[in-house]
Formats: sequence, structure tokens, C-alpha cells
Amino acid sequence: MWTISENSFTAETQRHKETIFTIGNGYLSTRGALEEGYPNESRATFVHGVFDDVPIAITELANAPDWLSFNVLLNGERFSLDSGTILKFERVLDLRTGVLTRTVRWKSPSGLIAAFKFERFASLADEHLLCLRCVVTPEFDGAVEVRAALNGNTDNEGLAHWRWMSQSQRDLDDGQQAVHLHSRTRMSGIDLILAMRLCASSPLQPDYWDVESIPTLRQVFDARRGETIAVTKFVGVATSRDSESPLALALERVAKPSSWEKALEEQRQAWAEEWKRTDVTIEGDDEAQIAVRFSLFQLLIAAPRNDPRVNIGAKTLSGFGYRGHAFWDTEIYMLPVFTFTAPHVARNLLEYRYLTLSAARDKAREYGYEGAWFAWESADTGEEVTPMWVPDFRDKRKLARVWTGDHAIHISADVAFGTFQYWRVTGNDEWFSRQGAELILDTAKFFASRAEWQEARGCYAYSDVIGPDEYHDRVDNNLYTNRLAQWNLTTALDVLEWLRTHHPEKADDLIQSLDLSEARLAKWREVAEKIYLGVRPDGLMEQFEGYFKLKDVNLADYEPRTKSMHEIFGFEGANEYQAIKQPDVLMLFHMLREDYSDEVIRVNYDYYNTRTDHTFGSSLGPSIQAIVACMMGYPDDAYEHFIRAARADLRDVRGNAKDGIHAASAGGTWQAVVFGFGGLRLTSSGWEAHPQLPKHWKRLSFRFIHRGELQTVDLHNPK
Amino acid sequence: MWTISENSFTAETQRHKETIFTIGNGYLSTRGALEEGYPNESRATFVHGVFDDVPIAITELANAPDWLSFNVLLNGERFSLDSGTILKFERVLDLRTGVLTRTVRWKSPSGLIAAFKFERFASLADEHLLCLRCVVTPEFDGAVEVRAALNGNTDNEGLAHWRWMSQSQRDLDDGQQAVHLHSRTRMSGIDLILAMRLCASSPLQPDYWDVESIPTLRQVFDARRGETIAVTKFVGVATSRDSESPLALALERVAKPSSWEKALEEQRQAWAEEWKRTDVTIEGDDEAQIAVRFSLFQLLIAAPRNDPRVNIGAKTLSGFGYRGHAFWDTEIYMLPVFTFTAPHVARNLLEYRYLTLSAARDKAREYGYEGAWFAWESADTGEEVTPMWVPDFRDKRKLARVWTGDHAIHISADVAFGTFQYWRVTGNDEWFSRQGAELILDTAKFFASRAEWQEARGCYAYSDVIGPDEYHDRVDNNLYTNRLAQWNLTTALDVLEWLRTHHPEKADDLIQSLDLSEARLAKWREVAEKIYLGVRPDGLMEQFEGYFKLKDVNLADYEPRTKSMHEIFGFEGANEYQAIKQPDVLMLFHMLREDYSDEVIRVNYDYYNTRTDHTFGSSLGPSIQAIVACMMGYPDDAYEHFIRAARADLRDVRGNAKDGIHAASAGGTWQAVVFGFGGLRLTSSGWEAHPQLPKHWKRLSFRFIHRGELQTVDLHNPK
Repeated sequence: MWTISENSFTAETQRHKETIFTIGNGYLSTRGALEEGYPNESRATFVHGVFDDVPIAITELANAPDWLSFNVLLNGERFSLDSGTILKFERVLDLRTGVLTRTVRWKSPSGLIAAFKFERFASLADEHLLCLRCVVTPEFDGAVEVRAALNGNTDNEGLAHWRWMSQSQRDLDDGQQAVHLHSRTRMSGIDLILAMRLCASSPLQPDYWDVESIPTLRQVFDARRGETIAVTKFVGVATSRDSESPLALALERVAKPSSWEKALEEQRQAWAEEWKRTDVTIEGDDEAQIAVRFSLFQLLIAAPRNDPRVNIGAKTLSGFGYRGHAFWDTEIYMLPVFTFTAPHVARNLLEYRYLTLSAARDKAREYGYEGAWFAWESADTGEEVTPMWVPDFRDKRKLARVWTGDHAIHISADVAFGTFQYWRVTGNDEWFSRQGAELILDTAKFFASRAEWQEARGCYAYSDVIGPDEYHDRVDNNLYTNRLAQWNLTTALDVLEWLRTHHPEKADDLIQSLDLSEARLAKWREVAEKIYLGVRPDGLMEQFEGYFKLKDVNLADYEPRTKSMHEIFGFEGANEYQAIKQPDVLMLFHMLREDYSDEVIRVNYDYYNTRTDHTFGSSLGPSIQAIVACMMGYPDDAYEHFIRAARADLRDVRGNAKDGIHAASAGGTWQAVVFGFGGLRLTSSGWEAHPQLPKHWKRLSFRFIHRGELQTVDLHNPK
Repeated sequence: MWTISENSFTAETQRHKETIFTIGNGYLSTRGALEEGYPNESRATFVHGVFDDVPIAITELANAPDWLSFNVLLNGERFSLDSGTILKFERVLDLRTGVLTRTVRWKSPSGLIAAFKFERFASLADEHLLCLRCVVTPEFDGAVEVRAALNGNTDNEGLAHWRWMSQSQRDLDDGQQAVHLHSRTRMSGIDLILAMRLCASSPLQPDYWDVESIPTLRQVFDARRGETIAVTKFVGVATSRDSESPLALALERVAKPSSWEKALEEQRQAWAEEWKRTDVTIEGDDEAQIAVRFSLFQLLIAAPRNDPRVNIGAKTLSGFGYRGHAFWDTEIYMLPVFTFTAPHVARNLLEYRYLTLSAARDKAREYGYEGAWFAWESADTGEEVTPMWVPDFRDKRKLARVWTGDHAIHISADVAFGTFQYWRVTGNDEWFSRQGAELILDTAKFFASRAEWQEARGCYAYSDVIGPDEYHDRVDNNLYTNRLAQWNLTTALDVLEWLRTHHPEKADDLIQSLDLSEARLAKWREVAEKIYLGVRPDGLMEQFEGYFKLKDVNLADYEPRTKSMHEIFGFEGANEYQAIKQPDVLMLFHMLREDYSDEVIRVNYDYYNTRTDHTFGSSLGPSIQAIVACMMGYPDDAYEHFIRAARADLRDVRGNAKDGIHAASAGGTWQAVVFGFGGLRLTSSGWEAHPQLPKHWKRLSFRFIHRGELQTVDLHNPK
């Protein structure tokens, strides 16, 4: 159960499949577009940190110059799936090795037949190396021509980001030849180099077509029926973010591999290491097995291994959706996967937040607050890049205002939460004292300054906020927000105590630099104590103030339906009903399990379950719902939600997988398995498992690293 | 005085010069970018009617695939002005023939010297033919390599509009070879074909570099010192707007010319015909002479000769400014040039409005009115394409609302005015009865429905409008608007009378289709009679209601200044002062001369003159100011304004000529000469000239066509 595959080609679903067949190595990812191109494809490679300006949405990951381009001509007829006849088609992504393979048997319009095998991978052993091989076996005697190009004329759905700078054909040190293309982003001025080298089974003496922005190598082979021609295209890639001499770096890396087989062997080894720490085994449920591995794979290829200046966008590096911007999805949905299985990656992601602290402080100050208010959408600098306006889908000349950047304050607590969880799981005191503690202290400072004292009620409030459930925007006292702010404040006080004890100098530094006077700390205590929470005597918690007064709704009454409750009620209407996009309140049970009794969980689960738009609401909801259902002892109910999360991309249940992987759903899928069915919980002394396996699962086994030690949990269903 | 020239190359002003050296033929225009390319150039070709979608601004003319691309290599070193040494540089645009010539003597980085001569023109004899010649004379023995390409990877300042469809090298009927490139706009689906053919002084056997989207022909010549190599690149161009087989059309046209010389001879003849009707001679003032010819040239190459489905954008076809959208600039500033010198073109421009009547009706209906309200910004369909929002220049995340599309109602009267003037000058009753009359009737219908009855004052008003002076937006009873609406209503009544007499069937048709009941016509009369005009007893007319109560200002007090009063006062501030961007009230004297006495003109001229931002206000102002100054008998004051209009592009007085020709200013320059200094006025029996030549002019001579007869006016300064 290691492969994602298909055995026919469908033009209509190609963009979805391009997302599914994305490969990558944590430095870049490349969508599964065909080497030779196809009409209306959504071909893209995204390199971490390579952002460029766009109107309104400020900045986006620039679709990099294309390294894939590879064309084959049979007696002058260009191989393309939109002409001739496809006699056989198979595509396989091997998750164990990160290699994408396509085999095609094709008959040209004039009747020439050949078998093709394309293989590609982004090297995990050397993140600056990309490898592609094309094997052609003609069923005729004649000319087989190959054309391998680097193409600088890419764009982001119509937005051109690249300027051509230079290109050349040149000798490498060992006498081989390489072709390079130097492109530069138009506004941000980032240089990107691609360097290409060809190897072949037969002797190569390619023509060099020195066409500006598309340097091309072209070779015509005198081919015989049944005799195989194999051409390997190595591409080195580097940017001015990586090196002062990206050209030298790209040329060095492209020269390295002695053969396709050697490069592939290193790839296999690197991935084997990766899976040692991260693999999850599920027996008795093939769909669940492959889905959790696919989710892990997609997160692992998107995760920056060596660069703390970048984060993971809501669509990873696999599509144009959300323009490469990072959200709270990272800390709450994806980060736990890395915290538990790849702590070095988790630390990069948290260090990114540390490096963007000054932008978060600027944002808070701009709105009149203190401390660190992180950007709702964050890109290269950490400044707020949430577009203030998006096109109104009913009238293309109009624009609709987007409010999340101004009102979704919970992001700061999410960052603090992820930081604290990382510390708790890894026990990395060194990093925590150096960077992590400051993240928790400065976000607490923000929440204390943002809290409004309401004299009449004697409580602190956060009014006019947007919580996770976006069916209701600009509400007062969203419980998720208030409770996490409270957690942030009390945790910050604990952290400061810990620092004073274990790192007194660092404590002094921070007390000075963040102005953590006793008066301020007293205020933190007071806000945490007196924050409005809205818990009823029976334990039922109101999602936000006034929620219970909204029109009630039982979503079962609207079944069957094919669209979200948001679409059914309309923008304004959704605010008037209790229908919610994702389970805001239940998230707290997942995140702060030890603070809530089973009874409280049950009361709230029962209330919110029927009011949550599980099917067409947020893709972030089902995994949380699954975890909380497991807490309740309903593993089979949980499974229904889990499998919805697991299918988000593979089955394209929301119809938008073409825009890229639902990264939060992928992280949530892993969390549902590990924290839900596996029942993994941290305790003060270590960890415990409280398994709740679905009936049909025979076995669940997973690994994680706890305080530096690899742990294995192996659970068997008693039935 | 027929040439625009420069004798050195300045990288910093290249975009301005690209605008100045634009060539075209009424079907397309190409900016004066260098054949071989240059960093940060603003290379562009715009083909009439080839629009594609853009966010917010809805649609724009797509920068067409590039036909210019031509590179030369000396022993492998690429000729480029950003490397090596420029030993000599000269560029000349010959307005008499429309040929742009560049001669360069250049030393390569390694020291090879060659002389280059590039010539290009867009054929006026065959609008589907483009011609380019490169003549190289090396001062060394060695290899001279040429590469001629078609490049489908163009964009509009970062917006990519083209999708590659196909390309080929193929034999033409006569054994010659051609290369074609087929591109398609991404959203609007317009096909555009470029077909290229090379001819040379030496035998040609070029390599074909079949690189997708940039098909390239490449030939290496064995060159000798002092021996000239001449390569001609013919390009045929056609779109799916022109023909069902644009490929066949482009191939047919590119095959036609037997030689560069033959094509050039046809070009000369076609332009000679053009100048016969249109030329203006000024003796005693070289700057004025060349400026008026340049203005005529730029209008003539932008004017659609054979296509009534398009109009002329505010920046002609010469730059990205205003995205190719047409404004009232056409009817009020440009159309008179064509009405008087090229009535077949004028009719195309007016027929465009006729063809967009249904969109104008839709717009009126959408806002709750009747009749035809033309789009403030109009493109292919005539629907309103004024962007509702533009980026706020102070905060790039924010947007500012643009109100002209909603409130600038005078456009409908401007269209009616242009229609009526065309009829009066040409006497084309056939067209007028068939199409023109309806334009005047349906715009009158709009103005009657838009008028608001104000019981208390017993008058009709147009409140919340934007007049020509955009320093004051959303005002009540803008005089220009009200007076032209009144003119439109009374003229419509006259037109209907004329139709009833001369074309009773057409009159009946229109009465039926436009519902011109007696009650409606009575309403027209009443609105025209009772429209608010705001004329003081001394004849001074208030630009809009409340204008005289604004803070007074004498702009002389702000001199010297380097920015507009808008920038000095700010957006809000400008609304509080009497400073105006252009002379709203004075325009009426120009347009409706016979309705105003000399004394009224004087009173208003004296009042508004000192309050108009002549230097940094609208580029539409100076020419009108010049015309009215001539009416006053101040030809030397007039000259100051005239020369400001004349210099708009040639001297780039506003610093934005890089965005394209100021077409209204170009039309205004001609009008200032003909109607101002020449004093041409239509009378009931024909025309009269009331010349007011500037002192230093020795002679002014111009031509125009009055009711089908070519007229020549030849004026000599008595001094």
C-alpha cells in the first residue's frame, strides 16, 4: 500500500491529478503535469520563499521556470496525449521513494507506435537536484527525436513573474555539457538558476537551440524497432536566497550524479530514512492506509528541512490556491505531525514565526495594541498579506471586503500553542529558552492589550473577532479565541517562572525587552481570570456570545444537499443561523484535553454535532470531529469524519483539489489516526495511548519521537 | 519638417522614446522598442479589437505576440546596446512614409565592429503586412549570424494573455518558406496568426529552431569586411476577428511582396494619399510644424480604416495606459480631425457607437434610466469597463473607488455631438438617417429620463454628476453636462423633424422602436426649456452649483510648482477650492460657438483662466484654452497653451508619455491650429475662416473635406 495510481488518462480531471501527483523534496514541489505539455494544464513548480508581488493579494509564490519540459517526436510527429491514440496509460506515484512514473503506449496520427516511460523525482538526498528520465521504445524503424528544454515563460494563472536574464551552453569541469537559464522575479528581484544536463543510453551530440528564455537541447536518434532509447535529464536548481552564487551551486549539483540509477539509489535511501520515523501502518483498511501515507508524503515534501525563513502554505507547494500564504493551519493542523515525527522541521516552522516577530509587533502596533499579533496570512516577511478585497463572485466589476486580517486574532494564540506543544514533546529547552519562550510571552502581551474590560459585567471581552468558524464573522467573545487567549496568558506566566528558574539571564533580557513589569504580569493574571467564557451550568459552552439566540437548525433536515450551508443561506443569512462551518468549541477538547471532563465533552459534542456542516463546511473540520468522537468512545462515528478528511484530495470531495493539497486536512488525517484512533496523549510523566480503533481495523501502528527517543505504538483490535 | 529623430541612445528615456517612435497602420501599432531587445523595455504591439479579460479593469488590449524580434551575432557575440560600445546611434521616424529607421555603429565587448541599419514599417497599403529590414556591414571578416523569431510569450506589464496553439515551418505556393505562430487569448479566445518570411541579399538556407511559442529562423553568413548583408523579415498578421481562416490570410499576405523595395514603394504611395487630405503646413515655427504633423500621424496610425467594431483608446494603440479603453476623448478631441480630413474613418468611429447602443441601453436600464447611456470607458462590447476600484497609491493593500463610470453622464451628449458634427460637415444623409439619428434620439431619451424635476425651483437638474473637470467629483448641475444635455434634447427634436420630412419611414421606425410618443417629445422640450444652467446676469456661468462658494484661488500664487493642484490640495482638498483641472465652461464656447456672444466668452475666459491648472491639470485642457483665446483675439496667449498641448508627448511634459500617446492632446493640437489659429467655423451656408495667427507664424495652410469636396485654406500673416 505505497502507491497512488491510475490506469487511464482523463483530460477533464487532469488538474486534480496534477495536484495528486505532485512530487517534491521540501525545497520545491512540482505538480504532476505531463512532461510534453497538455492543453489547459496547470503546470507549476513552487520553490520555497520565492515570492513576487501581485496586485491586492500583495505577494505570491512565483511559479518557477519549468524544468520538466521534454518532448519526443516520432519521424517528426510530436508525442502528445491530445493527438493520436492512447493505447495504454498508467501513472504511479510511489510514496515510498517519491518517484512518479508514467507509462504510455501511443499511436501517432500517422500510425507510428511507441512505448514511453517517464520517471521523475525531486531528490531528497540533494534538494538542489531534479531528475527526469524518458525511455522510448519505438515499434518502427525511423527517427526518434528528443527535445529537452528549460522554460522561463511560466506564469501564475496569467500573472507573469519572471524576467529573462541570461542563458548559455557551457562545459562542466568533467567535460560534460550543461545549459543554464537565469531568470529573475520582476518585483522582488530573486534570481533563480536552472542548469540542465543530458545523459543517454546512446551517444549524445545534441543541437543547442539558443532561443531566449527557452534554451533547448535536441537530439535525433536513428531508432530501430524494439530498441530502447533512454535519455536522462538532470536539472540543478538554486536561487539567490540559497547562495551568493546560485549559478555555481546549480552547476555543481547538476554535474554530480554519475547516472540515473545512482541518483535513484540515493533517493530511495533518503526516503527510507524519512519513513523510518514517520510511517503509519493500518491493517484491514487499504483506503485509510494509503490516505494516511499520502497525507504524510504531501506534508513531508512541502516541509522546509533547511530553511527557517519559510513556512508551509495552506495548499503546500502543490497549487496556486492561497498563493503560498501560511495560515493558522500550520500550527494547529500540520505542525503536530512534525513536532511528533520530524522535530527538526517543526523547529524550522516555529523559527519562521520567531523571525517574523517584528512584523507581528508592527501589526499589533498599527491596530493600537501591544505585543505580537501574527499575520492571518503570512508570506516572506510576516507582514499581513491577507487581501483586503476579493472579486465579488456575483459581479466581476465589484469587490468584497475580506475581514480575517483585521479580526482573526486567534492566530497569535495558535502560534503560542504550537510552540508550547513542540517544547513539551521534544523537551528542547535550548531552543525554547532562546526563541520559543519569547513567542509565548509576546503573544500573551498582545492578548492582554487586546482585552476589553467590561465594567458592568466585571469581565474581559474580545469583541468583533472572527473565530475558526467563518460562517459567523465579526462576533463577540468567540469561545475558541477567548479560551486560547486565557491559555496563552497563564502559560506565559508559567513560562516566565520557568525561565526565571532555569535561564535567569534570558528571563531578565525578556523582562527588559518586552517590558514585563510586575504590573503587566498582574494584568495578565487578571485578564486570564476574568475573561468571558460563556459556559452554561450544564457545561454547554456557547460558541460566541449570542450564538444560542440564533435561529436553530438541524442540518439533517437539509440532506441530501450538494452545497455548503453558506451557499444555501447566503453570506448574510449564514450569520443568522446556528449552522457552523467547523467545530469551534470541540477543537478545545482536542487541544486542551486535560481541562475538560468527559461529561462536558459529551454535552457539547451532542449539541454541536448536528449543527456542523460536516460535508461542505471547512475542510479543517472533519479530522477534529473524528478526534473528539474517539474521545467519546464512538470510533465508528469518528471513522466517517476521518475518512472524509482522508479523501479531501484523493477523491476531490470538495471539487477544488486542483488548487492544491488541503494541507490542514492532510495534517488532520494524521492527527485523527494518532490522537483519535490511537488515542495518544501527553501526560506529565510521558505519554499514554487510549486506543479506539474502528471495528474493521485489524492493526494500527505508528511512530513518533518523544524527547529525542523514537517510540513505536502497535495496536491490535481485540476483535 | 517631416522627421522625428534622435542621435544618441539613453536607457533612462527609452520607454518615452518607444511611445514617440510608435509605427502603425490603423490595424495595429508597434511601439519603438529595439528589434534585439533591451532590459526594462516596454515592448508592445496592439491590434485593434484584440481584447482579453483582466481583473477589476475587466478587459484590455492584449499585447500581441511579438513580430519584431531580430537578433544579430558577430562571431557569436550578440548585438545589444546594453553591452559593448555604441560608436554611433541615430533613430529617425519619417512621418511622410511611416518608416522608422535606426542606424548604429557598435563595437562588441571583444572589439568587433559593425554598422547596423534597422528599418521597419506597418504597411498602410496592406494592413496585414509588417516589414522589417536589417542591414549589417561588418568591419571584420567572420561570422554574422541572424535570428528572426516570432515570440508568443508577451504580456501586459505582467499579465499574460496568450496561449500557444501551434506553429510550423511550411512551403508557400511559390516555393518560398514561411514560419507561422498561432496564439489564442486566454479568456476571450481570439486567434492571432503571425507568419514570417525572410529574404536576403545572399542565398538563405536558415535553420529552423522549432521551440514552442518562439519559432525562430537562424542563418549564419560568412561575412567579409565592408560587405553588406541585408535581411528582410516580412510578417503577415491576421486574427479570427478578420477572417474565418486567419492562417490562410496571414500566409497570403506575407507571400505577396516581391522585395523590400516594392513593399516600401507601396507604403510611400499609400502615405502620400493620406497626407494629401490631411497635411497642415506651418511656416515660421518648426516646432509647431513638426508637432502638428506628429499629432496627425499618431492619430492616423491609430484610426481604424476598415473596422467599425473598434474605437481609439485614450492612449491610441501606443502604450499600456488606460488598457485600450475609449473615452469621450474620441468624440470631442479626436473625431473632429477625422470628420474634417478622413470622413470614412470618422464614420467607423461613430458606427462603433451605433454598434454598442444595446450595451448603452443596458447600462441606462441598470441604473434605472431610459435611452442610451454610453460607457465612460468602452472596449469591445460597449459595456461599462471603467474599473470600480484602483489601488490606493498611499497603501498598496487598499483600493480607492472610481466614480466616473457611475456619474460621468456627459459621455452620451458627447457621442451625440460628434454624430451631429459629422453629419453637418460631411452631409452624409444616408448614414445619418440609417444610424446617426438614432444615436442622437436615444441619448436625448436618456437625458430626459435622467433629469430630476425640482418643484421648489421650477427647474430640471442633474445632480451627483462628474463633469470634464475631475478636480471636483460628484457635483450638482455641472454646466457642461447640463448645457450639452439641453443641446442634445433640442437637436434630437430637430433631427426627428428632419427625419419625418426626408425619411418618413425611418422616422416611423424610430418613433416605434424608441417609443417617441408625443408625450415623451413634450417632456424633452420641457426639460430642455427648464434645465438649470446657473448663468449670472453679467454672463458669468457657474461651472457647477456651489462652485462660486468654494475657496477662491489664483493659481499664479502657487508658481513655480512641479505638481498638479490635485496633489497639492489632496483628493478631498481639491473639492474645496475653485482650482479646476480643465476649462469646463470654456469648452462650450468651442463646441457651441454660435450660441455665445463675444462678451460672454470674455467674462468667462477672464474668470476661469486664472483658476485653471494649465500646467499640470488635464492634458485635455490646453488645446481648448488655446482655441478660446483665439476667439478672444489673443493668438499669442493661445500659442502658449497650444504649444503645451503640442509638446505633451514629444517633450513628455507630464512625465507619463511612456504609457502611450496623449491622443486627446494630439487631436486638440490639430483643433487648436484649425479652429483656433485658422479660425475655421461652419456656417449655415458652408464655412468661414477667422484666422488669428501667432505673430511669428509666416503661413498656415490646412486642408479638409467639406461635403465631399477637398478644401484648402492658405493663410499668410500680414506682418
